Amino acid sequence: MRAGPSQEEVRQHNLGALLRHVHHEGPTSRAVLAAGLGLNRSTILGLAGDLAAAGLVREEAPQETGRAGRPSLVVRPEPARAHVLAMDVGVERLSAALVGLGGAFLDRREHRWPAGQPQDPARVADLLAGFARDLLARRPPGGTWVGAAAAVRGLVRHPDGLVGLTPNTGWKDVDLAGALTDRLRRHLPDLPDLPVLVANEANLGALAEHRRGVGRGSRNLVYLHGEIGIGAGVISAGELLRGARGYAGEIGHLTVNPHRGRPCGCGARGCLEAEAGERALLEAAGRDGTGAEAVRSVVAAADLGDVTARAALHRVGDWLGIGIANLANLLDPDLVVLGGTLRDVYLGSAAQVRSRINTNALAAVREGLRLRVGALGDDTVLIGAAELAFADLLARPLETLARLSGR
Amino acid sequence: MRAGPSQEEVRQHNLGALLRHVHHEGPTSRAVLAAGLGLNRSTILGLAGDLAAAGLVREEAPQETGRAGRPSLVVRPEPARAHVLAMDVGVERLSAALVGLGGAFLDRREHRWPAGQPQDPARVADLLAGFARDLLARRPPGGTWVGAAAAVRGLVRHPDGLVGLTPNTGWKDVDLAGALTDRLRRHLPDLPDLPVLVANEANLGALAEHRRGVGRGSRNLVYLHGEIGIGAGVISAGELLRGARGYAGEIGHLTVNPHRGRPCGCGARGCLEAEAGERALLEAAGRDGTGAEAVRSVVAAADLGDVTARAALHRVGDWLGIGIANLANLLDPDLVVLGGTLRDVYLGSAAQVRSRINTNALAAVREGLRLRVGALGDDTVLIGAAELAFADLLARPLETLARLSGR
Repeated sequence: MRAGPSQEEVRQHNLGALLRHVHHEGPTSRAVLAAGLGLNRSTILGLAGDLAAAGLVREEAPQETGRAGRPSLVVRPEPARAHVLAMDVGVERLSAALVGLGGAFLDRREHRWPAGQPQDPARVADLLAGFARDLLARRPPGGTWVGAAAAVRGLVRHPDGLVGLTPNTGWKDVDLAGALTDRLRRHLPDLPDLPVLVANEANLGALAEHRRGVGRGSRNLVYLHGEIGIGAGVISAGELLRGARGYAGEIGHLTVNPHRGRPCGCGARGCLEAEAGERALLEAAGRDGTGAEAVRSVVAAADLGDVTARAALHRVGDWLGIGIANLANLLDPDLVVLGGTLRDVYLGSAAQVRSRINTNALAAVREGLRLRVGALGDDTVLIGAAELAFADLLARPLETLARLSGR
Repeated sequence: MRAGPSQEEVRQHNLGALLRHVHHEGPTSRAVLAAGLGLNRSTILGLAGDLAAAGLVREEAPQETGRAGRPSLVVRPEPARAHVLAMDVGVERLSAALVGLGGAFLDRREHRWPAGQPQDPARVADLLAGFARDLLARRPPGGTWVGAAAAVRGLVRHPDGLVGLTPNTGWKDVDLAGALTDRLRRHLPDLPDLPVLVANEANLGALAEHRRGVGRGSRNLVYLHGEIGIGAGVISAGELLRGARGYAGEIGHLTVNPHRGRPCGCGARGCLEAEAGERALLEAAGRDGTGAEAVRSVVAAADLGDVTARAALHRVGDWLGIGIANLANLLDPDLVVLGGTLRDVYLGSAAQVRSRINTNALAAVREGLRLRVGALGDDTVLIGAAELAFADLLARPLETLARLSGR
């Protein structure tokens, strides 16, 4: 706040708050907005009017409520007016989507490759840039492109987005953000020159479940993402916890079995992902192959009574429980969300996971802790990337739109 | 920010920012304040004048600089004008201090008891209230008592301060805050009716080292406090990380040795404090007794070549390194501060600790990580309690002072 915000800054802030509300919560009546934002109704009227004039929202009569009296108009986000490019460099697939204001997927592209096969960063950037060109060429008429973000599985430095390391695919110090920004600039010379943001997949998953999934209403949650390795995204007091350089959340490399542990791709021994990751599960179940489908087949086999599959899930659930107990003792979240393949692993080993948490987390910590599988399915990370890409517009809607619509 | 702050709110905010600056940094010239707070010099002049009129600061000519030109006046906090009561329920001693604005200890009291002997909460409250009565009776004339806070070694619920559990002294659901507030109200009927705040010792240690110790300038640090058990206080993006209920930081109960580990007071096995706490060190060194002095004697013996003491420190340093590697991978701090008896343990086992961090923390995480012993010695926690007790005054200086000086 420093020298104190000006009237105009307060207005921009309130415009952002209103747009964020309808972007995340969907169509909302002016009366509910006034209560939710702590503003009076005439202020809401003015703010909604300004956003409607810019085309970002539409005001309309609510559906018939059957109640007497003049109904409060509903403010609805306009998906076609502003959209972002969300990209995800997954272990098994490369995805890109055009996502409209309000969170609707307007269009999408996907490329699958064999799980775990190392991918050349330049080829990844080429493929994503191709998707981007294609998606943006078909974007809604009258719409403005307001942001772009990509998720990677690895250590991503904040705020510049340098990919320091992807332990399971071997990238080291890769400037994917720069590579994508350059390609989009060349491919799309008529569009605004937008920097592509890059972030860690579990952080984006945490953002997605916090804003749109099972974590709505929680201000202290951890999202665990399984996909070969295990990553965590931590929301603390409503904000993403980044750490000093952006590397916070590397729960996959928590040492849980230091002396007898399995070797991990990071060079250490007994890391959580070496004990509870996909490879550990599949090996314990005596399966070849990798990837989500292989994990699901173990869970399905265990359901049908396969003893080896059950024992493998039991073993992995035990380690997963220790990992969750550790993060609970250290972070005291009220919610842990399991996503990616950990969703399936947890559904197949919930009793074991909970039993370990009961033993290894402090009573006061575990008593208030809920465990839930993610609500957003395979698009969780992509949804989080869209949220990150919308951040500028949602912080300063009219300024951002004016700047980007100019071209 | 919601509907936007009024002019008066902005002024209160700026008064707080100026007072916080001189409280933490000591006497500061108006010119440096203007630069540091991002305000112009006439605003600083007005704010410093208001604080001086209330007696909270004094403005005076700086010491001779030898430079030409009119020197900028220096703003200095007035320790006698506002003071707090800081209390610490330690394992070996009970302490209380009257701390003046600017952080000076004006007076103090202490009671020692045998380390590890369980203390009755009512007796602790009685002793502390006696200290408080004595300290406040002799407080500086013209001074106003503006806050009180006490530290305990255990799980403290936020924001009400209920002590859920002190694993090493056996308290469970103790309302120490209420007990102290009641006693102070009865003992000191002529003084303002101030609520006593209660907080976790490692959280307060983190606050102290962050504001006044080796953690100044770091926005992402972890303070580790050893005193029978091991607790952590986490500063993330400049703020104390509390978790959903205030229990964050229970690093002592991170499971690091699940299968072969030693039993822990919490009921689990292989917790960090079971492997690297005081008892583990003293047992490995073949010593009787408990407490800081016993720990220091092991470190001293190892220095003199005692093979058993060296082996014990080596073993404990190994586990401490695993614990620090784990919190580094999860939180990505740029600084870990070792306090309490961990200060001595670390000085006696630094090579082992660092070697384990090199093996078990990810390269990108450990490369930017510094380890330091605390700068504030045995009063770290008490200093943190004083900081917590000053929070109201520093947030809204004139309002708080007017409210409390009225009586």
